[in-house]
Amino acid sequence: MELDEYSAFGHEIVAEAGRIAAAGFRRVGVPVRDKGADGVFDPVTAVDRAVEDRVRARIAERYPRHGVRGEERGADAGGSAWTWVVDPIDGTRAYIAGLPTWGCLLGLLRDGEPVLGWMRQPIVGETFFGDGHGAWLARGDGGRIILAARAAVATLEDALLAATHPAMFAPAARGRFDALAKTVRQTLFGGDCYNYCLLAHGLLDLVVEDGLHDHDVLPLVPIVRGAGGVITDLAGETPRRGLVVAAANKALHRQAMAIMRG
Amino acid sequence: MELDEYSAFGHEIVAEAGRIAAAGFRRVGVPVRDKGADGVFDPVTAVDRAVEDRVRARIAERYPRHGVRGEERGADAGGSAWTWVVDPIDGTRAYIAGLPTWGCLLGLLRDGEPVLGWMRQPIVGETFFGDGHGAWLARGDGGRIILAARAAVATLEDALLAATHPAMFAPAARGRFDALAKTVRQTLFGGDCYNYCLLAHGLLDLVVEDGLHDHDVLPLVPIVRGAGGVITDLAGETPRRGLVVAAANKALHRQAMAIMRG
Repeated sequence: MELDEYSAFGHEIVAEAGRIAAAGFRRVGVPVRDKGADGVFDPVTAVDRAVEDRVRARIAERYPRHGVRGEERGADAGGSAWTWVVDPIDGTRAYIAGLPTWGCLLGLLRDGEPVLGWMRQPIVGETFFGDGHGAWLARGDGGRIILAARAAVATLEDALLAATHPAMFAPAARGRFDALAKTVRQTLFGGDCYNYCLLAHGLLDLVVEDGLHDHDVLPLVPIVRGAGGVITDLAGETPRRGLVVAAANKALHRQAMAIMRG
Repeated sequence: MELDEYSAFGHEIVAEAGRIAAAGFRRVGVPVRDKGADGVFDPVTAVDRAVEDRVRARIAERYPRHGVRGEERGADAGGSAWTWVVDPIDGTRAYIAGLPTWGCLLGLLRDGEPVLGWMRQPIVGETFFGDGHGAWLARGDGGRIILAARAAVATLEDALLAATHPAMFAPAARGRFDALAKTVRQTLFGGDCYNYCLLAHGLLDLVVEDGLHDHDVLPLVPIVRGAGGVITDLAGETPRRGLVVAAANKALHRQAMAIMRG
């Protein structure tokens, strides 16, 4: 089947992306520059670009008719139903600071809908993978764990919430996020793409973030959904940019959406 | 020399602590309960206690006259100049959420002053160690890196600041921290003990936190100082509890202290 072939290929190129990213990790002196148009510090490293260029080259060579969308080099539409989405290093700030909470993200869309997703963390040595129906964690020691989002926590008061940074929210969303954070049992900051994977793993209950891009979020959708979780934008659709609400189960998602919709 | 012997022993027991902590990591169902007297969610796991009990048993067996202070089991004064300080899992919240940013902390005090310190992260497979004069990172692959805090970043406007959680600050300190966060180039949340070690590694420039305990901070002092960094409380003394200001160099420390003193 077509999708099995793409799945094997995806595992291969996300591992290669991880090797390039790992080689540059904590190398003091990695070139960093501002690309934030609005004066926000948005570090882009040479490593980021090297990873994306390599992934793009592999896809172009193997599937020249597939589209590709990446953080650094924009979109090539391709000429088929299939589009790959690449975030070479999600969590560039954590990467630059030397924290092992970043990941290489890869997703595959069919007619615009995410069907396969990967998060590779080469320092810890693990890959989270989902196809929307199931999700797995492949560990460095060869172990493989089936991921299942937590069903037992069904009220916000018991839930663990995570978001990368309190300043990532637009002003209106910030007030609502603060209200949500006051309601839940506990809020963790940091984490980037790991938060969504740990929700799939049954360890976190909610991830609510703002200001995301398609390459940040689309690769994580098949992982969260494959583990039984719910991940949408504020309209309840597949999240593509801006505000994202991910929950371990429908009951939590409904309660979090009610607060985030204001 | 006495201190060399203690150093070898410390490496041994912090590695053992890491093995126990790693065995419980991401085991869904680790017992978690509230111990926060003030209603704050303060998760304590059975693993936390198992690690501390093991470390205490090893110290009592080898150095029965040494004192021990730990997060879970309080203080044994001992009958010598030497006291070990143990934080079995610093970053319990990250541990419970499955993020690899927690660490096993161990410190050795002579007449109350921190002289040796360890941070062990067994999932990433690394140990940060300092003796106040030097600091090293021992990696899982056998590599050993000499740590040096960053000297090149000397103004707040260029500095990367980290803190575990914006809600960790008492109200007066929170306003000052927010002012500091607005001044620096970028603020990262999350990280726990890793932040201090990454400052020693030359990757972060400032760590400013509040509400710390002696077991949270004393083990990190010889690492930060050994790498050439500065770490004090608001009075400029060895930090023991409450508010801590760590900086990669004296110039940054002076500027951050001016803001945090208000």
